[in-house]
Amino acid sequence: MGRKLLLYISYRGDGFCGYQAQKNGPSVQTTLNRATEELFGHPCDITGCSRTDSGVHARMFCATVTRQGCGTLDTDIPVEKVPRALCVRLPDSLSVWEALWVPDNFHPRYDVSSKEYIYRFLLSPQRDPFEAGRSWHLPCPDRPGLLSDMQKAAGAMVGRRDFSACMAAGSEVIDRVRHVTEAQVTRDGDILTFRVRADGFLYNMVRIMAGTLCDVAAGRMDPSSLPARLDSLDRRQMGQTAPPHGLYLNRVFYDDPARPGYHGGATHGKEQA
Amino acid sequence: MGRKLLLYISYRGDGFCGYQAQKNGPSVQTTLNRATEELFGHPCDITGCSRTDSGVHARMFCATVTRQGCGTLDTDIPVEKVPRALCVRLPDSLSVWEALWVPDNFHPRYDVSSKEYIYRFLLSPQRDPFEAGRSWHLPCPDRPGLLSDMQKAAGAMVGRRDFSACMAAGSEVIDRVRHVTEAQVTRDGDILTFRVRADGFLYNMVRIMAGTLCDVAAGRMDPSSLPARLDSLDRRQMGQTAPPHGLYLNRVFYDDPARPGYHGGATHGKEQA
Repeated sequence: MGRKLLLYISYRGDGFCGYQAQKNGPSVQTTLNRATEELFGHPCDITGCSRTDSGVHARMFCATVTRQGCGTLDTDIPVEKVPRALCVRLPDSLSVWEALWVPDNFHPRYDVSSKEYIYRFLLSPQRDPFEAGRSWHLPCPDRPGLLSDMQKAAGAMVGRRDFSACMAAGSEVIDRVRHVTEAQVTRDGDILTFRVRADGFLYNMVRIMAGTLCDVAAGRMDPSSLPARLDSLDRRQMGQTAPPHGLYLNRVFYDDPARPGYHGGATHGKEQA
Repeated sequence: MGRKLLLYISYRGDGFCGYQAQKNGPSVQTTLNRATEELFGHPCDITGCSRTDSGVHARMFCATVTRQGCGTLDTDIPVEKVPRALCVRLPDSLSVWEALWVPDNFHPRYDVSSKEYIYRFLLSPQRDPFEAGRSWHLPCPDRPGLLSDMQKAAGAMVGRRDFSACMAAGSEVIDRVRHVTEAQVTRDGDILTFRVRADGFLYNMVRIMAGTLCDVAAGRMDPSSLPARLDSLDRRQMGQTAPPHGLYLNRVFYDDPARPGYHGGATHGKEQA
């Protein structure tokens, strides 16, 4: 059986026009394409685990590399030397931190069992230069009960249900049932972190959840109303779509721990832990 | 007695050609000058607590604002509205997070009793896109004893002594005695943080200390040799000058807690705490 090269990468969303190849600027995919072609000496196909939008960050993103049109990859370069060899060919907004061989029937998107996103909010009277482009500066003041209100609202999002209320208008997905296994809000100083894990996400789902949490933080929405809002299946019952620069794809999980592609224990950077 | 306006600001070093006005690009000072002139309606003098080099960050920096040539400032704008009014006139790499009135005999540089810098190192096989320009990627692998070696070396830097060995060649300062009251290294995941507090610093002193810690981390320098190296007063006994982008002015302390300018308890962002 042939094999594919699986890359674990992270990237800053502000460096790219999203994951997928675009006409209006460099995408993560085209950037990886150029570096892998240079390293392996032939054009490659890059398949990612997800299609992050423009501005969205990834702390852990999986992508396979195969020879163009071939479905497998053959190279003499030792796999442990690949991350560094690619990093020197990539901009500093993108890093390959691990590479490993996987069987050629492995698919980085179809084989995903669950994904974890985080959404970071900055809660401070003035903006923080070190958080520019990395969190959403909440337009509301701090108040007692703010965190517990957000936690209550996040808790209401856990479960298997139709998440139509959290789907961007215009998406044509028919099956809108997703299983959210974790949704919580924590605070560290000025930073509030919303962490959500599910077997799949609808278009803009996490950003709509984050926009809803913003309304809860601002006291414009009662957290106890969340179950009814979700049940309504009505997008208008939820908050605005939060901006992309607070969103991070944080972890990708694969089903079978014995499978080479499994990397549930991977950590790179603080937020994954 | 007249009064001056004291600003607490933070900035990313990569946004400016250092603190002081330069010909080759925007400095923190000229950027503040423009914003304060626009807000107060007349040219202002800006006096900073320190002169950070190009690329160096500040999490807490103090600067006074007075009417040009006047030594005091008069305005009807309520002081609590100043931070936001200035922030909207500043780039996102610079933020004013507090403003207060101080007596006109207050001087933000001469009245400093001590300052605290931190230097951040990234210790990971590959670089991290979220740390680009914010820490120094150490060119050595992790190893057992690395942290304790660095801690031992940092500990040797504490005390009142002649720090000629930690001063950039070419500096014309005569009195090279400084009192380092704290110097320690901590680790959080891939990030090593060197924190040093003193009554004053020689030119490039923290960056030379950080470069020396890099040699210790790499196993090229025995931490127990540090006292003799410092005693030598010889710059060549220390490590290289570490790059500016890992360095942060973290806190500025003023003598008199009763003085309005005192802000020892200020926190903004995680690293100050």
